[in-house]
Amino acid sequence: MRFSSRVDISDPNPIARAEAQAAAQGVAPGKLNDSNPTRHGLGPAAIPGVYAAQPRGPRQAREALADFLGLRDTSAGASAGAAAGAIDPDRLYLLSSTSQAYSWLFKLLCDPGDIVLAPKPGYPLIESIARLECVRTREYQLCFDGSWFIDAAALKALLDGPDGPRVRALVLINPNNPTGSYIKPGERGAVLELCRKHDIALIADEVFFDYALEPFASNARLAGERGVLTFTLDGFSKMLAAPHAKVGWIQVSGPQPDVDEAVRRLDVIADDYLPMSDIIANRIPELLAAVPTQTERVLGRASANLAALHTLLDDDADGLVSVLRAEGGWNVLLRLPAVLDENDVVLALIRDQRLSGQPGYFFDMASNGYLALSLLPEPEEFARNVRAVLATVAKLLG
Amino acid sequence: MRFSSRVDISDPNPIARAEAQAAAQGVAPGKLNDSNPTRHGLGPAAIPGVYAAQPRGPRQAREALADFLGLRDTSAGASAGAAAGAIDPDRLYLLSSTSQAYSWLFKLLCDPGDIVLAPKPGYPLIESIARLECVRTREYQLCFDGSWFIDAAALKALLDGPDGPRVRALVLINPNNPTGSYIKPGERGAVLELCRKHDIALIADEVFFDYALEPFASNARLAGERGVLTFTLDGFSKMLAAPHAKVGWIQVSGPQPDVDEAVRRLDVIADDYLPMSDIIANRIPELLAAVPTQTERVLGRASANLAALHTLLDDDADGLVSVLRAEGGWNVLLRLPAVLDENDVVLALIRDQRLSGQPGYFFDMASNGYLALSLLPEPEEFARNVRAVLATVAKLLG
Repeated sequence: MRFSSRVDISDPNPIARAEAQAAAQGVAPGKLNDSNPTRHGLGPAAIPGVYAAQPRGPRQAREALADFLGLRDTSAGASAGAAAGAIDPDRLYLLSSTSQAYSWLFKLLCDPGDIVLAPKPGYPLIESIARLECVRTREYQLCFDGSWFIDAAALKALLDGPDGPRVRALVLINPNNPTGSYIKPGERGAVLELCRKHDIALIADEVFFDYALEPFASNARLAGERGVLTFTLDGFSKMLAAPHAKVGWIQVSGPQPDVDEAVRRLDVIADDYLPMSDIIANRIPELLAAVPTQTERVLGRASANLAALHTLLDDDADGLVSVLRAEGGWNVLLRLPAVLDENDVVLALIRDQRLSGQPGYFFDMASNGYLALSLLPEPEEFARNVRAVLATVAKLLG
Repeated sequence: MRFSSRVDISDPNPIARAEAQAAAQGVAPGKLNDSNPTRHGLGPAAIPGVYAAQPRGPRQAREALADFLGLRDTSAGASAGAAAGAIDPDRLYLLSSTSQAYSWLFKLLCDPGDIVLAPKPGYPLIESIARLECVRTREYQLCFDGSWFIDAAALKALLDGPDGPRVRALVLINPNNPTGSYIKPGERGAVLELCRKHDIALIADEVFFDYALEPFASNARLAGERGVLTFTLDGFSKMLAAPHAKVGWIQVSGPQPDVDEAVRRLDVIADDYLPMSDIIANRIPELLAAVPTQTERVLGRASANLAALHTLLDDDADGLVSVLRAEGGWNVLLRLPAVLDENDVVLALIRDQRLSGQPGYFFDMASNGYLALSLLPEPEEFARNVRAVLATVAKLLG
């Protein structure tokens, strides 16, 4: 696996070597220059404890997280190729968001001008973050024929083409947003094979994984995948329905030599930022305990709204709007009459209904006539939202 | 002022325009795609409240911070060229650390290969962060002749030289670390003039500002400087002696058009990351209240240790070690006999005293024979540390 030249991994100086040697013999030396106030009794009473400045995040929080993730994988059935059960807390990096995780991984893997592959349709955030890291994005196509699938042939052609050698990572969102589609076993195999062949790392964003709207026996996490170097992103934003907590993490897995080298370099990045606050880390065990209830609650809301949506659409005499099959996630895509311009629909919604929305072109849908709909609102608000779309479409066509 | 090409500031689409227009008329539309669970009664009980997703950080926390900073400036006497009193909370960005602040500002200002000027001697962290952002650093020299001063002529020559046009920012650390030197009024004038002439932004790191070890009537913050586009960095790590809190901020000031454009672009970066957790933000007012006591407490410790250091050095019969004059901060530089190799001294300390340290070459000191010493340890430990250095030097020379 190739890595970027951004990370300074030059040999340690003689002092760092001697410190490591002494530490290995159990006599870690003190530091004349130690200016960590919490180690000298000078921390504020309001934030007790001694700050350990661990790059991957406070050890205790990572252990609690590793336990949680390990139990979850065992109970849910481990995914193909993934390690069942025990997760090494030293393969976890705690940070403030999956956005920050993307940034770190782009720094780790990409020099300026290198390429990251991202799904289309997809959210524009990845492209924006890549640009901030001087990284180019190329989109690979998801196609729809009743359900969404990756166009593996197009992906292969892209990798075999002139841009191929600059591709350093492939972003897989499982399930994807806003299409709501999970990676199927066949797709997984094809993607892993291409990543292996082209020496590409996998960035697997699984923040919506637990929100399956249809039972799929074949749904499997990429977290823990051992076939290629894999960075799985997850966090409390979706899992705990707590975007305001600002807790995300990276789980590193794959062939041992790749993992070792990735972790060595990721440690340098993590050590420059040390982003995880003890104020938050101390609460991670308590917050993890709330995850199952929260996931169930939010999934209950989303499922009930999806059922209500189907009823509302079935009952609609005009029959102009339908919903694309959604396998998972918090959003669905409504299909509008293609004769309507997406912008016109949303502008009319803003004007007449005081409701805005994101049309398909926001996510690079291949054709016109789509609108994203959140499944999270309270039932009455959700029904109002759906009726507002139906009324607006009817009016524009009327 | 030139900015980087990393930030996408393309014109808003028709939907974003219509949303903004409606909001300006007081009828901000709802969103069909609103998948913020806290707005739909789905947030976890453990983190109450509705997440507002404000790029600059939660408004209430920024208001509390603006009040605190404004009062501080008024009571301490405003700095030359800076606004006294009121600080606009919309010119503050809350984030997780000054490291993150450096990253954001390098992204804002620098394309790959652009240059940032950083002080020498100085901490290597800035170079490491710059490299992660594909930005080059060039050092400008601080000289010592009893006190530290910026070699303005060398700085001017650097800017007039071949690399000059690629320089996008100058980092000023006030007081600098580990030299402990504050910017003097004459230096400030010269630096501002050069920044204006060469269209360079100022990044002023003032985390140690409140830790003056000598009374200097002329010490003045760069925060609020209006002469050039200035980004001042500060945070709880030093001010509250709470590196584990992970609270830092950027204060933007300068000529109005530059500030407006900088804020417009910084908002895009901030919106991609949204790093400030409500768990922390909710505690910011309480933590700000603890700052004065904490600063006083830590300054008391540092001042007492500095006095003890002078006594210990004066009492030392060998007289081989002295201390460079320190104007402020948490560290001092010890001057060792130049015949000793710095590495040898620290390696002997590790071996014989179980104490490590950072010699002058870590900070790019211009000559050999320096060792950084923290002023924070409890008095007994501090005295032990000093005696360990004296004993080691005597032994190596003996």
